[in-house]
Amino acid sequence: MKPHKISFVGAGKVAWHLSRHFEKAGHSVCEIYSRNPKSAAQLADSLYHAEVVSDPDFRESKADIFLLTVSDDAIESVCRACIFPPNAVVAHTSGGRPIEALSVLQNPKGVLYPLQTFSKGKEIDISQVPFCLEFDSDEAEQALYDLAASVSKSIYLADSHQRRVLHVAAVFACNFTNHLWTLSQEILQNENLDFDILKPLIAETIEKTMNLGPENAQTGPAARKDMLTIEQHSLYLSGNPALQNIYKVLTDSILKHTP
Amino acid sequence: MKPHKISFVGAGKVAWHLSRHFEKAGHSVCEIYSRNPKSAAQLADSLYHAEVVSDPDFRESKADIFLLTVSDDAIESVCRACIFPPNAVVAHTSGGRPIEALSVLQNPKGVLYPLQTFSKGKEIDISQVPFCLEFDSDEAEQALYDLAASVSKSIYLADSHQRRVLHVAAVFACNFTNHLWTLSQEILQNENLDFDILKPLIAETIEKTMNLGPENAQTGPAARKDMLTIEQHSLYLSGNPALQNIYKVLTDSILKHTP
Repeated sequence: MKPHKISFVGAGKVAWHLSRHFEKAGHSVCEIYSRNPKSAAQLADSLYHAEVVSDPDFRESKADIFLLTVSDDAIESVCRACIFPPNAVVAHTSGGRPIEALSVLQNPKGVLYPLQTFSKGKEIDISQVPFCLEFDSDEAEQALYDLAASVSKSIYLADSHQRRVLHVAAVFACNFTNHLWTLSQEILQNENLDFDILKPLIAETIEKTMNLGPENAQTGPAARKDMLTIEQHSLYLSGNPALQNIYKVLTDSILKHTP
Repeated sequence: MKPHKISFVGAGKVAWHLSRHFEKAGHSVCEIYSRNPKSAAQLADSLYHAEVVSDPDFRESKADIFLLTVSDDAIESVCRACIFPPNAVVAHTSGGRPIEALSVLQNPKGVLYPLQTFSKGKEIDISQVPFCLEFDSDEAEQALYDLAASVSKSIYLADSHQRRVLHVAAVFACNFTNHLWTLSQEILQNENLDFDILKPLIAETIEKTMNLGPENAQTGPAARKDMLTIEQHSLYLSGNPALQNIYKVLTDSILKHTP
């Protein structure tokens, strides 16, 4: 594997994790640019050679890969604000944005989408993280494949449409499930009950899903078509119409999925 | 701990798991009664001394505890159909039904609610399962506490209202999350993508929730108020209005929870 020189535009959680893993794998991180100079400085401090730059004019940069680790909404404006060296590969890391979000650039372009949720300060086994790649040229393909393969065993080619679908599916599988745990915790807290009592059940539920597949692991009143319990739950939730509506919508969907 | 003689009315998954664990803990299972004689026979075959009975007249039974492991909807009709020995403790195992579901009986009564999801043929660490107890008498308290404490380290007193709340919270935390995984899998399958690619992300999501609490682990477009991505996801789902509505309802709820 060829060691690359990488610069990051954006110093959030994705940059935080990718930069240290790419360094560990033998690449070097040259520059960090962020609208928030404090985040950029903190990230640079945690790396070997990285330098904070205050101006997104990278014409003098030695980096051969620029990773745009900014929020989805900011990718296009960042492309307009930055000046990259002409032959450097520029890639964003978003599941939700097409490669065309970079189209204002003349550089070789691509997407390096790590299909994982990152938290500051929490280590992750990067070797298990699926990296979804897209590129518009051989240069971008080679560079992004080098990066992904140097840290992960799980590499997929996924075009913008497939990435969008993966992202939508991930919202259902992760963001929405986490929110349901938040709602569940609120229901318990309102009655002075502790969320911890549910943790063995949650752990077993996920184990069943992973082993049997979710379609074979469904339990609960809707899967049993236990309409009396459903009615009583709905009555209990009637003081909170938003919560009651979530209960109704998901219950209806389970009923519709149950033969 | 006093060894008890237990009979089961109902031979489903709950009976399957509880009966073998109670046997292992030194109790004996006397009788199994089920509307489905084949299920009753299969369960009895897997136990040491259990006998299948075809008539729910238990006046001659030696059991001192009767566990009604039937569906929530069936508890009251089972109480009317069965004749129990006058001093035996009778308990149901439902999170969703009050102790009053047993009120037609003259016996000491209670509820022994294992807060776990059971699958036939999949072993479970019963010592971690929270048992929620309720009782109407000292006899029922003693008998149900003996049973629960003989297999689990995690025993809670929970009255019918608290049990209802736990059950509602468990529906959100487990049944609905599992259904979201089913929907996520369907979204991927429609595009010939494999659900396995999401498994590292799901595993990390649950680990974050367990460590940080779900309210601190929320990520995704709604938590970032990334309205452009939300709009594009919604557009992608527009061919399936039910799915699009679930996306909208849960996204709105996350937005409302995000400061």
